[in-house]
Amino acid sequence: MSPEAFRAAGYAAIDWIVRYLEQIESYPVRSRAEPGQLRRRLPRAAPEQGESFDDVLRDLDELILPGITHWQSPGFFAYFPANSSPPGILGELLSVGLGVQGMMWVTSPAATELESHVLDWLVGALGLPEAFLCTGAGGGVIQDSASSAALCALVAAREQTRGEGGLRRLRLYASTQAHSSIAKGAKIAGFEPDQLRLIEVDDALAMRPDALAAAIEADVADGVRPCFVCATVGTTATTAIDPVPAIAEICRPHGVWLHVDGAYAGSAAICPELRWVNEGLDQVDSYCFNPHKWLLTPFDCTVLWVADRRPLIDAMRIDPDYLHNAASASEAVIDYRDWHVPLGRRFRALKLWTVLRSYGLQGLRDHVRRHVQLAQQLAERIDAHPRLERLAPTRLGLVCFRLRASDEDNQRLLDALNDSGALYLTHARVHDRLFLRMAVGGRLTEARHVEAAWAQIVSRVGDPG
Amino acid sequence: MSPEAFRAAGYAAIDWIVRYLEQIESYPVRSRAEPGQLRRRLPRAAPEQGESFDDVLRDLDELILPGITHWQSPGFFAYFPANSSPPGILGELLSVGLGVQGMMWVTSPAATELESHVLDWLVGALGLPEAFLCTGAGGGVIQDSASSAALCALVAAREQTRGEGGLRRLRLYASTQAHSSIAKGAKIAGFEPDQLRLIEVDDALAMRPDALAAAIEADVADGVRPCFVCATVGTTATTAIDPVPAIAEICRPHGVWLHVDGAYAGSAAICPELRWVNEGLDQVDSYCFNPHKWLLTPFDCTVLWVADRRPLIDAMRIDPDYLHNAASASEAVIDYRDWHVPLGRRFRALKLWTVLRSYGLQGLRDHVRRHVQLAQQLAERIDAHPRLERLAPTRLGLVCFRLRASDEDNQRLLDALNDSGALYLTHARVHDRLFLRMAVGGRLTEARHVEAAWAQIVSRVGDPG
Repeated sequence: MSPEAFRAAGYAAIDWIVRYLEQIESYPVRSRAEPGQLRRRLPRAAPEQGESFDDVLRDLDELILPGITHWQSPGFFAYFPANSSPPGILGELLSVGLGVQGMMWVTSPAATELESHVLDWLVGALGLPEAFLCTGAGGGVIQDSASSAALCALVAAREQTRGEGGLRRLRLYASTQAHSSIAKGAKIAGFEPDQLRLIEVDDALAMRPDALAAAIEADVADGVRPCFVCATVGTTATTAIDPVPAIAEICRPHGVWLHVDGAYAGSAAICPELRWVNEGLDQVDSYCFNPHKWLLTPFDCTVLWVADRRPLIDAMRIDPDYLHNAASASEAVIDYRDWHVPLGRRFRALKLWTVLRSYGLQGLRDHVRRHVQLAQQLAERIDAHPRLERLAPTRLGLVCFRLRASDEDNQRLLDALNDSGALYLTHARVHDRLFLRMAVGGRLTEARHVEAAWAQIVSRVGDPG
Repeated sequence: MSPEAFRAAGYAAIDWIVRYLEQIESYPVRSRAEPGQLRRRLPRAAPEQGESFDDVLRDLDELILPGITHWQSPGFFAYFPANSSPPGILGELLSVGLGVQGMMWVTSPAATELESHVLDWLVGALGLPEAFLCTGAGGGVIQDSASSAALCALVAAREQTRGEGGLRRLRLYASTQAHSSIAKGAKIAGFEPDQLRLIEVDDALAMRPDALAAAIEADVADGVRPCFVCATVGTTATTAIDPVPAIAEICRPHGVWLHVDGAYAGSAAICPELRWVNEGLDQVDSYCFNPHKWLLTPFDCTVLWVADRRPLIDAMRIDPDYLHNAASASEAVIDYRDWHVPLGRRFRALKLWTVLRSYGLQGLRDHVRRHVQLAQQLAERIDAHPRLERLAPTRLGLVCFRLRASDEDNQRLLDALNDSGALYLTHARVHDRLFLRMAVGGRLTEARHVEAAWAQIVSRVGDPG
């Protein structure tokens, strides 16, 4: 592809994305594809000769689009949002255009320094503890997901304590509502299932500090070593908030690593009035949240912060001769290869930088506030409806509700809504009851889309009366 | 950013990349930035109000570019290549424009099916074993890096065998030349350093099968359990090739998982005459290579294949209620969330698809052949030079050479070449001797760039005679 052909194809790709986003409401939100539908329509082998980019764009429309579930649709209320945005798209484009691999400072100093810098910006913008600044003893790093970030925190905690009797003697703690990535990380890190204790929650589905304290004390009495606690700020099922200050007080005397998973809720701290999500973070060892969820930065962009970077680096560092260089030896620079699982890394800071600069903090606050307000209005409507009930407080953008009926009736309601193509919700289960989750958080989601979703719900459960 | 503003900014970003790639030879390949240079020039806080995209592009030129080490420069011969390409850039752009998160089939059926399909295309295009096809019992998955892929293989192997006495009883094997990611993966997966045995190599720096057999037999005699062997096809230091068929024969009777790391060399199999890199892959449990190294697909794009996907999924699967859906329950689809560490995932198959379609297999073969030929020519020149010697055979694109002088002299030569700005090489060390690595593999690297690099070398070490 010559430079001029690349330019023309690049313009065509930009036009394609502009048109896609303009037309996005015309597609069924959840794809209606059948298993195997795309594969049956694709050639059995890769082409011998190169094809034109026009052909690729045509197939994107005709073959790929019917198999897309439209995460950027304003009718996407499933899981949690994974927001893209024009500045974020362009940041990713510039990053892949530069094509640098920032495994170490020397392999592109700007990739490392922009990352440290924008993460320090976020510490200020979100009101996070100064211990998280890269200019001090701690620091932040961009990873692909909260799963990988939790794994890194877990491994750092494990390496700090395994000397005291070996891996088998360590114990981990998270609430019954913690994300599945904690159990997955524990498994990957070599723990047996019985080493992860799932702590009971209270009526608000938050971890009970008394139950955590009892579990830790019982383990100490049994001669095993409490190693790691994960507290969740904004659980997946209902955005429940574990009491981080009380949990930190329990961890401290036992030298237990406290990790906080704020994957979804962490973005809320951009708004001063929602900064209660940060409560207790000045007492934790590590914290992660996902700008790719609610802060308009395209997936993937998770930030992991540590109050002290030494244990993380000690746990992750392998130092072969072929990576030695003068800058690393000077210890005047950060080499992010030692802050996560992979060696190589993309220049992901660029998209976070284009997002922060293009929206400014005020633009990001407007975005988060709009969703919280829309979710609140929806919650009020649900409360006023005799056949519906809410399952949990609506403090952020997630509304959890159910029909006052059987699980089967709720599953049928969910399926009917999703089959309509107008919206996409998902479910969860607490206290052994199935409920519907409606996560309001799309960049394009406005009041009229929540109205339309409500109309879809009411058309199936009846008017409020 | 309105759709029209997005279009204009998108065109500007495309223009920026076209210009960057046209001017790339004018920059020093390795950045000359000092530690802290970029951070000192950036504002101390994120802006309150949004700024224009023009301002962002201006700062990209003025602030970021001086801190870039130009991986896409034709004078970049360091590490291994991490090739970008116009079709790959556009594939990534379309992926971020769609903004889908393909953690499960249902969250975008086309993201999963295109991935399975293009990886099956690669099985054919590279002449890999049919057991790796997603249509059978095995299959392929895109991951971020060979490090993460090795970790997954290691965890799958561990879970298959840990029942026989626990994790502490397991042993892992790789050659002394294996990539650092194997030791890092072992550490993350919970192994102690003494559980990884580094097996001696022969004069060609390939693993000695007799030494592996002896280590495994000694471990069995000691009552510990051999669990996992990593063979390397194309080591980082010198592209040495471990003898996979002989290693597989040793592993089989002991039920040891055999993983092959072909991160760099695997791309060579696109050329039938280089398909010897695949020897023995029909007898392995897992295999990975990086299309992001030598196959024109922008970082990140590693492929991990397994001959049987069950152990991988069994090791990685955690199944919370909130991810349940009818398609997954039908078992008629692949959910890639269970094939790697993270839960969420980008639609990376799109860039592999745009690359395969735009270049065609012939275009990719031309790309690899050109580099192998250029490396061969350079090797001949080095051999004819009285002050230089090669350290290893040049069978692919990597040339390993040194001054017939002290390590210090070689380090000075390397520093002088890199300080020139005209090229960027890295070093490695074998048999306790430092040498220079020149990896010929850039998309833009032509004969004249290798000539220019040779002229730089000769200007410092003298004419050949």
